[in-house]
Amino acid sequence: MISFENDYTTGAHPQILKRLVETNFECLSGYGTDKYCESARNKIKIACDCEKADVEFLTGGTQTNAMIISTMLQDHEGVIAAETGHVSVHEAGAIEYTGHKVLEIPHKNGKIPPHILDNYLANFYADDNHEHMVFPGMVYLSHPTEYGTLYTKKELEEIAAICHTYRIPLYLDGARLGYGLMSNASDMALKDIARICDVFYIGGTKVGALCGEAVVFTKENKPKHFMTSIKKRGALLAKGRLLGIQFDTLFTDDLYFRISRHAIDMAESMKKIFVDHKYPFYLESSTNQQFIILDNMQMDKLKQQIAFSFWEKLDDTHTVVRFATSWSTTEEDLDALKAAL
Amino acid sequence: MISFENDYTTGAHPQILKRLVETNFECLSGYGTDKYCESARNKIKIACDCEKADVEFLTGGTQTNAMIISTMLQDHEGVIAAETGHVSVHEAGAIEYTGHKVLEIPHKNGKIPPHILDNYLANFYADDNHEHMVFPGMVYLSHPTEYGTLYTKKELEEIAAICHTYRIPLYLDGARLGYGLMSNASDMALKDIARICDVFYIGGTKVGALCGEAVVFTKENKPKHFMTSIKKRGALLAKGRLLGIQFDTLFTDDLYFRISRHAIDMAESMKKIFVDHKYPFYLESSTNQQFIILDNMQMDKLKQQIAFSFWEKLDDTHTVVRFATSWSTTEEDLDALKAAL
Amino acid sequence: MISFENDYTTGAHPQILKRLVETNFECLSGYGTDKYCESARNKIKIACDCEKADVEFLTGGTQTNAMIISTMLQDHEGVIAAETGHVSVHEAGAIEYTGHKVLEIPHKNGKIPPHILDNYLANFYADDNHEHMVFPGMVYLSHPTEYGTLYTKKELEEIAAICHTYRIPLYLDGARLGYGLMSNASDMALKDIARICDVFYIGGTKVGALCGEAVVFTKENKPKHFMTSIKKRGALLAKGRLLGIQFDTLFTDDLYFRISRHAIDMAESMKKIFVDHKYPFYLESSTNQQFIILDNMQMDKLKQQIAFSFWEKLDDTHTVVRFATSWSTTEEDLDALKAAL
Amino acid sequence: MISFENDYTTGAHPQILKRLVETNFECLSGYGTDKYCESARNKIKIACDCEKADVEFLTGGTQTNAMIISTMLQDHEGVIAAETGHVSVHEAGAIEYTGHKVLEIPHKNGKIPPHILDNYLANFYADDNHEHMVFPGMVYLSHPTEYGTLYTKKELEEIAAICHTYRIPLYLDGARLGYGLMSNASDMALKDIARICDVFYIGGTKVGALCGEAVVFTKENKPKHFMTSIKKRGALLAKGRLLGIQFDTLFTDDLYFRISRHAIDMAESMKKIFVDHKYPFYLESSTNQQFIILDNMQMDKLKQQIAFSFWEKLDDTHTVVRFATSWSTTEEDLDALKAAL
Repeated sequence: MISFENDYTTGAHPQILKRLVETNFECLSGYGTDKYCESARNKIKIACDCEKADVEFLTGGTQTNAMIISTMLQDHEGVIAAETGHVSVHEAGAIEYTGHKVLEIPHKNGKIPPHILDNYLANFYADDNHEHMVFPGMVYLSHPTEYGTLYTKKELEEIAAICHTYRIPLYLDGARLGYGLMSNASDMALKDIARICDVFYIGGTKVGALCGEAVVFTKENKPKHFMTSIKKRGALLAKGRLLGIQFDTLFTDDLYFRISRHAIDMAESMKKIFVDHKYPFYLESSTNQQFIILDNMQMDKLKQQIAFSFWEKLDDTHTVVRFATSWSTTEEDLDALKAAL
Repeated sequence: MISFENDYTTGAHPQILKRLVETNFECLSGYGTDKYCESARNKIKIACDCEKADVEFLTGGTQTNAMIISTMLQDHEGVIAAETGHVSVHEAGAIEYTGHKVLEIPHKNGKIPPHILDNYLANFYADDNHEHMVFPGMVYLSHPTEYGTLYTKKELEEIAAICHTYRIPLYLDGARLGYGLMSNASDMALKDIARICDVFYIGGTKVGALCGEAVVFTKENKPKHFMTSIKKRGALLAKGRLLGIQFDTLFTDDLYFRISRHAIDMAESMKKIFVDHKYPFYLESSTNQQFIILDNMQMDKLKQQIAFSFWEKLDDTHTVVRFATSWSTTEEDLDALKAAL
Repeated sequence: MISFENDYTTGAHPQILKRLVETNFECLSGYGTDKYCESARNKIKIACDCEKADVEFLTGGTQTNAMIISTMLQDHEGVIAAETGHVSVHEAGAIEYTGHKVLEIPHKNGKIPPHILDNYLANFYADDNHEHMVFPGMVYLSHPTEYGTLYTKKELEEIAAICHTYRIPLYLDGARLGYGLMSNASDMALKDIARICDVFYIGGTKVGALCGEAVVFTKENKPKHFMTSIKKRGALLAKGRLLGIQFDTLFTDDLYFRISRHAIDMAESMKKIFVDHKYPFYLESSTNQQFIILDNMQMDKLKQQIAFSFWEKLDDTHTVVRFATSWSTTEEDLDALKAAL
Repeated sequence: MISFENDYTTGAHPQILKRLVETNFECLSGYGTDKYCESARNKIKIACDCEKADVEFLTGGTQTNAMIISTMLQDHEGVIAAETGHVSVHEAGAIEYTGHKVLEIPHKNGKIPPHILDNYLANFYADDNHEHMVFPGMVYLSHPTEYGTLYTKKELEEIAAICHTYRIPLYLDGARLGYGLMSNASDMALKDIARICDVFYIGGTKVGALCGEAVVFTKENKPKHFMTSIKKRGALLAKGRLLGIQFDTLFTDDLYFRISRHAIDMAESMKKIFVDHKYPFYLESSTNQQFIILDNMQMDKLKQQIAFSFWEKLDDTHTVVRFATSWSTTEEDLDALKAAL
């Protein structure tokens, strides 16, 4: 069945597999110390226009979030996130497993409104009892968000300014960062992300890799002995080459950006199909995830022909569902969707 | 200064100190195995009308909550609590420190409305992605709540029925249980609590003890090797007698209930004083905590004469403050309050 | 440089890469629910001659150890391991990170002698203070051990019998299980491991995979909601196919066993080379890891030509070093070693 | 029965109870912010001859160890302790519960020999694989040790010098510090401990208090927001006065030292009784704990008349047992012992 269920239903971009095959019998050192990891780190630093960055590779998104958050927070701190944030809802308590609370605040279409954040922090310190509460020690946001929405450069800078005021780092979850950067609505390039945020990751799993996320510490703020902390959390791959080769390939000849752009082109075409067929959108998204409202009978019928994702119940007779394109979506997939509608 | 700041500003009921002095040179075994702990356990079981109960003593409320919740949850589970619950807000992340998420749901005057709980659980299991989320594995509620309010027997039974349906235990935080049971509005006795809940604790610290809470497991559900788990969390007192003697005294001749009733009598008189002086109440409470709305100028002035607690900002010119009575509140304290108003 | 440094210096067996390429554009469900994971599970169950087994895939060895141990232990328990065990020394505290102690006991050539284990358990329960100590809740052993040595079937059965007596599970770390099973000295087949142990894993990373370990629960003892626990620890791959396809390939046409046998053949040839050149062995190993004693000048010289691993200092002038073969070791590699010696 | 079982069989020194009674109805602020805590802090700073010290009160020894160790270690670090150390054996895994490994090293009569420590650290950093291992991040020792033995000033200074070399803090567990300082064999005063160690605690529970330990950070090294970290671990007493009043009393008119000295006098008399009756000592202790070797028949008989502690099995017919004096031991107790022998 044709699937728009998510952006990780297929394997890896063929160029990645090709490079894995080509390098397969090279004898390389382990644990991320090989030359491909090194090369990938350098290419990412250049792409970020941030020479002083530290780049580390991890395997998946939840792992990366738990790793970054737990090694950068102090003992008495928690992480602020939108109540719809991935760390708040869909990581099975991975942050709490590290002993830290996720401080959930209201969202607007998946985004943290700067004034909400500012109020939260001001109120926290104004509360006489705040020493009995979890200190806000970091801001987590995802870009694109879980609803496919994007922060503007102005919004991200406002949030960063608030973080600076309270001396807490700003962490951006870029599981789908490519799709955000290549969106028509984006007013930021990768180097803007690197300049504004204290730490972020460039998602590989959802943008053409078999697995892998590249963490970028931009302010000479990588936790000491980070490799040992990775090992301690069971997250250190013996064959670090698997991550290095993939990111080295993705950051050669702008592959990461080109395949992200392809997904956006497909998403724009898909949006048009829904508009043409007068399907209502749950919200406006300019990235590869589109949220459509279906009445439940429509949904059950469509489900027979096309795979998509349940998102949330809207009311007793309607459901919000998600259609996602990816680097591997084809024109044929779109034709099938059109036919099904 | 006369203080209504909270219910733990004075030491212990004199009868407790008397017993500590009388027993001081008795040579007793450690870690809660002494005869006073044993006697206190028996008296509590009788007071609960629950012969099969297991009773354990701990030192403070946050410690007790973390202990109960972390030893009764499964790995993949978290605890449901009102967003205003003590575990949600005022325990500095003690539950998360044990690796479990607090699943915060909306409240009504500090209480969990049964239908909100029911919906939460139904929606959780209806969500296709729930295996990526924290499973609700326990319901936590406080009685009285953080707002001094009380569940009715009917409400508590409804919540218990929902818990049974989903096969998760109901845990009641009774930090101020005495003040709840002795309230004029209470339609439950201690044995009702013991019958309805799977586990609860009888608060000592806020009801006349120097420290100490008595945990009651009512359904032959005490975690195996609980004493070792207590030790593992640094919560095992070498001189367990300190807790045993206090609870033995509190549960001799109904002392716990009598001093709780005294606090309620004082609270009723205090309410009358506020009514007489036309101070608005933030909400209706029938227990020892009363929440009053003050305009900020009033507040600053009153603060000079009487100690009370900041609760929360109401608007730019008004603040919600708390006045608490306790077992040690006197008529003279009330007279001073009247004079100050 | 020719390397005998370890068994993970090259990529994956070519057949695995071939299958990754062939299946790359198939649209598969995520998180280990795809048909390749299913097929791999079935093939492993057949290879284990254990129809009721539950098979789960994880990414690396430390992750697997932490996952199994932390989900199978009770709160008051720790895991017994040899003081040289991987979990004791070389996992950066990954077990302790889950809140559980590794109870280290003496070893003999990396193995736990059954009588040492038996004494440890008997002494634990004979100690009047044992409720203040960490209860032994599982036995961890590696096969082959960190020293390349193997348990005999008799030894493993004795250990299992002790575990049964104390009602604790026996967990076997099979990071290099293939090399153990294919050793000339092995008197056990995979089905023996499955019959004797309560849980074990079949190592992929060190036996021809890019990454991946297959956990086998043999006694209907998989922890409830294990997938959620995996997610909670950041260990759930979105593209579970990466693990499924690899293990499906390894367990097709006995590939896992054939490539393991190749490594053993290479190791036997390598041993002969060391014997011929009169290099002393630190201990007798019948698997793919060989431990040689070099004087430090020899070592520094040899290091220029051949890569191998530091193991431990023997005395001021001698060092124990490790030479490892793997599925990808070639006759040419051995010729180069011979030439260098 | 007369008991030499341990040093916490009786309640509190009568002067402490007297002060609890006298101050009982004073209205004091909570959580360790009251005037008695403040006064106690000052008296302890003076007793330590360390004006810049930060003093915090906790309830018990295991709690204190877990608190100090977990807030002072970095993520990648563990704590070095003697394999007989309290944190290694008798705290039910409380340190591991915080996510950190106890790195156990050999002992001599309960003490860490400086050269053993030095070798351990040198070997750690010489190991090529040390980034995969738990970094030694603190040294824990107890003084007196679990065997009643004492470090000399020279030994403690050597250990501190090694810690400085490796830039890790030295932490001294003083559960029985009074009995160590007042021993005839001690060549250190409290101010020496404060000068040499980075952090230590002055034990109250075993030296005349109902409960309570006073942590002293001597090098302006108290972790930030320590009170919130205490709360997070469920270790913050609402009625902090319970600890403040006790330590204020213990450090008034040298009470702590006087009652410690009494226990030593009693221990010296007790030693003489054992010598006179020709009972062999397991080791030489100059503090309040004496370790005697009994044949098992002797032991069973003596047990009928006098309470003492099992320590460890020596051989099949002999057992090491412990006799402890304390601040509350009387001449009558000794006479009873003499009669029983």
